[in-house]
This record gives sequence, C-alpha cells and structure tokens, in this order.
Amino acid sequence: MSMMTEMMTSMKDMPSMSMMDMEAMQECMEACSACEQACIMCAGSEMPADTGKCMNMCMNCADVCSTMTRMMMRPMAYDMPSMMAMLDACMAMCRACYDECMMHADTNMCCNMCAQACMDCYEACEKMMASMKSMMA
Amino acid sequence: MSMMTEMMTSMKDMPSMSMMDMEAMQECMEACSACEQACIMCAGSEMPADTGKCMNMCMNCADVCSTMTRMMMRPMAYDMPSMMAMLDACMAMCRACYDECMMHADTNMCCNMCAQACMDCYEACEKMMASMKSMMA
Amino acid sequence: MSMMTEMMTSMKDMPSMSMMDMEAMQECMEACSACEQACIMCAGSEMPADTGKCMNMCMNCADVCSTMTRMMMRPMAYDMPSMMAMLDACMAMCRACYDECMMHADTNMCCNMCAQACMDCYEACEKMMASMKSMMA
Amino acid sequence: MSMMTEMMTSMKDMPSMSMMDMEAMQECMEACSACEQACIMCAGSEMPADTGKCMNMCMNCADVCSTMTRMMMRPMAYDMPSMMAMLDACMAMCRACYDECMMHADTNMCCNMCAQACMDCYEACEKMMASMKSMMA
Repeated sequence: MSMMTEMMTSMKDMPSMSMMDMEAMQECMEACSACEQACIMCAGSEMPADTGKCMNMCMNCADVCSTMTRMMMRPMAYDMPSMMAMLDACMAMCRACYDECMMHADTNMCCNMCAQACMDCYEACEKMMASMKSMMA
Repeated sequence: MSMMTEMMTSMKDMPSMSMMDMEAMQECMEACSACEQACIMCAGSEMPADTGKCMNMCMNCADVCSTMTRMMMRPMAYDMPSMMAMLDACMAMCRACYDECMMHADTNMCCNMCAQACMDCYEACEKMMASMKSMMA
Repeated sequence: MSMMTEMMTSMKDMPSMSMMDMEAMQECMEACSACEQACIMCAGSEMPADTGKCMNMCMNCADVCSTMTRMMMRPMAYDMPSMMAMLDACMAMCRACYDECMMHADTNMCCNMCAQACMDCYEACEKMMASMKSMMA
Repeated sequence: MSMMTEMMTSMKDMPSMSMMDMEAMQECMEACSACEQACIMCAGSEMPADTGKCMNMCMNCADVCSTMTRMMMRPMAYDMPSMMAMLDACMAMCRACYDECMMHADTNMCCNMCAQACMDCYEACEKMMASMKSMMA
C-alpha cells in the first residue's frame, strides 16, 4: 500500500469520506499528481520559439492538476459542487494541453510523454466524476 | 497604472489578447489574487476544533484562486474551454468558501474578511465569464 | 489599511506575532506577492528560443515567492530557522532572476519590469531578515 | 523506469544537466514530492484545537517541498546559489515539521507518517546538497 493510500485510508472514518469512491479517487490523485509533474518537466524542456503556446498550456495544466490533487487530499472540505466543477476544469485543461502537446509529439519526447499523462489524467477525472454522480444518485 | 496592468498591457499585441476584455480581466486577476491571500490568512488564523471544515475550504479556495490568477497571466495559453471551465470552478469554490466562512463571521474577524473576498472574487469571475461569452457571440 | 494589513493585524495577539516586526513583514509580503505576479507574467511573455533560461528562472522565482508569501501569512507556524532559511532562498532566487532578466531588459519590457520586482523583493527580504535578527538579539 | 526518470533522462544533453548527479536528484525529487503530499494530507486530517501549529507547519512544508520539486524539474534554470539556498530552506522546513509532527505521532497516524516523509525528504536533500558540493569541488 502506498503512503498516499495509507494516509487516505487512515481518514476513512471522516463522514465526508462516505461520499467518495476511494478507489476511483486514489487513481485520480495519482494521475493528477503525475500529470502535474509531466507538465512541469515538459514546460521546462522546450527550446524552440514556436512552442510558446505549448509551454504556457503546460504551466496552466500543472497548476490545475496540483490544485485538483490537493482538493482530493482534504476530506474535510469535500463539497460536491466545487469538487465537480474543478473536475470539469481539470478535464478541459488536460484535453487542451493534450491537443497542444500532440502537435509536437513527433519531435519532442517530453511533449509525447506529457500528452500521455494528460490523457491518463483526463480519463481518471472522468471516472472519478462518474463515481461521484453515482454516489449522489 | 499598477505593475500588473502595465505588464499585461505590454502584451496587448499578442493575438490571443483580442479574445479578452482587458478591463474585466484585470479586475478578475486582482480579485482572485486578493481572495487567495485572504484564504491563506483565514486558514492560518483558526484555532477551534470545530472549524476544520472551514480551514480546509479556505486552503482549497486559496489554491483554486492562485491557479485562476496564473491562467489569466499567461496570454499565450488563452483557450476558451479551459478558461471558462476554470472560471466555473473558481465561482463554485468561492461560493462554498463564502458559505462556510459566513457561519463563523460573527466570532472570527478573519472569516468575515475572507467571506467578503470570496464574494468579490465570485462577482469578478461572473463578470469575466459574461465578457468572454459576449466576445464569442 | 489594506485587507492584508487588516487581517494580519487581527492576528496580532498570537504569541508568535511578538517575534516579528509587523511593518517589515507587511512590506515583505507585498513585495513577494508582486514579484510572484511579475515572474508569472514575464515567463508567459517570452517568445524567442534564447530565453528558455529566463523563462525557467522566472517560473522558479514565482514559486519561491509564492511559498515565501504564504509562510509569512501563517503566524502559527513562525519558526525562526525555517523562516530565515526561506528568506535566504528567496533572496538568492530573486538575485539570480534579476541578473537573468536584466540581460533582456532592453528588448523585453516584461523582463525590465520583472527585474525591478525581483530587486524590490530582494531588498524587502533583506530588511525582514535584519529585523528578525534584531528581534532575536 | 518511472515517467519522471524517463522525462528527466530525455533532457540529459542540456549543458546544465552536467552539474547534477542525476541519481541523487531523482531520489530528492521523489522524496520532496512525497513529502508535499504527506504534508497536505496531514494538515487536512487534524481536528483538535491544540494542533493549529502542526497544521500550519505542514502547510508551509507542503509549499516548500512543491517549490523544491519544481525547481529540480527545470534544468534550464539550474543555478547553483539559488538551488543550494532552496535545499537549505527545504531541510530547515522538513526538520521543523518533523519535530512538530513527532509531538502528535502517538495519537495521530497522519502525523506519524508525515514525520517519516519529512525525515526522508531531509535526508534526500542532504545527499543532493553533498553531491552538488562535490560536483563543484
């Protein structure tokens, strides 16, 4: 069991935890955290003048993913409307960053790996959102 | 003219800038930045055991507002779907944090001021969103 | 009185506050916050291939200044060794970012303004450090 | 090979990379990132009124570790004085947060795990610092 899983598990008796599917959330936290890191390294790896947009997209995506990860790590503040709106924002950001990085995936290995991390994060957020909707139903 | 306004103005010839109402955005950046600061101080000011939720809401709101501010400061990455989804998330977060802080506004002066900053930020994001929708129409 | 000053003043009875010169700290918080913003905008404004180093320095400086600001906004965690080490790091980062931005200050207005914000932040941190040393003497 | 290692390795031909011991740095990045996460969860887990200091220490430590991780992920901005000063700050912060969390390690499992993450991070930063000093010698 990873440290993250162990710490989150130790908080499982908080009432707010009952609103969340812990498995989907663990996966989502890991994917958001990996995406932040990929985006930071991708933004820092680029040289050519024509990738200013990509670099800035990656900086945005890193900050969005960092915020999303932190929100999931704070069970006392689980509030459905803000969590779901932030998941939407994270999906929109990951999609935009993926599209941009894919344009340079052939020539920049960091863009290639960053695009993959964005796609993984998008899918993990989508699953998390679905699990939240089903818990509320 | 503030440093922020001056620096943003120096980038006004970037093509992406034409999609934004600079006045609404300046106001929104200032409000988001002020809200981040109020939330950090509010989270750090609280003592009693019963405000764990408020503290965590404020930490979330601080991170969301920081990310929102940074996204507006990066014109090369203005992408309508991700900017608008993030504005939605910022509004949802500010509303939730406002509601929580208002419950302690009588007894904690920091909660009182933080609630005000959240409301100001909510309204500035709402205006920014309206201006973006009208530029796209 | 600014919101920041008002909120910090409302916490002035916390025991840890007695270790700090509130005036020097207010100035330092404002300068760190302004420097973070200048660095984010400067990093986002640059196009040419040869400013990759400058962009990355600015991203680092933004994150360092954000952390420094947040630490000063959390009186309950005033711990002299970590605060002073972070002030040192902030001064070293601002100096390095200043030096880098000054190389492009003639051609990039954002670098020019960012260098100024770095110098202001460096000086405010230096004063804050001096005030902390004198309170401990 | 982890994604982080793979992306950092893809940048190994940048001139600035020759100043760093990649193995020590990988370990340091992983430890700083894990410490940020432990601190966020620890700060979010605490209820009792008497842990206000601990919570705020953890919030500081999370932000310091996030900044340290990001700086290591930006090879173009490797600048020895600012990197070493930030490593010093990270060590001082991890030590202070460790000391604080250890006071509640018996009663709060999150504090226990967070203290461990702080100690691991401290040691990884110490090794990284030693490797940087030996590369400069």
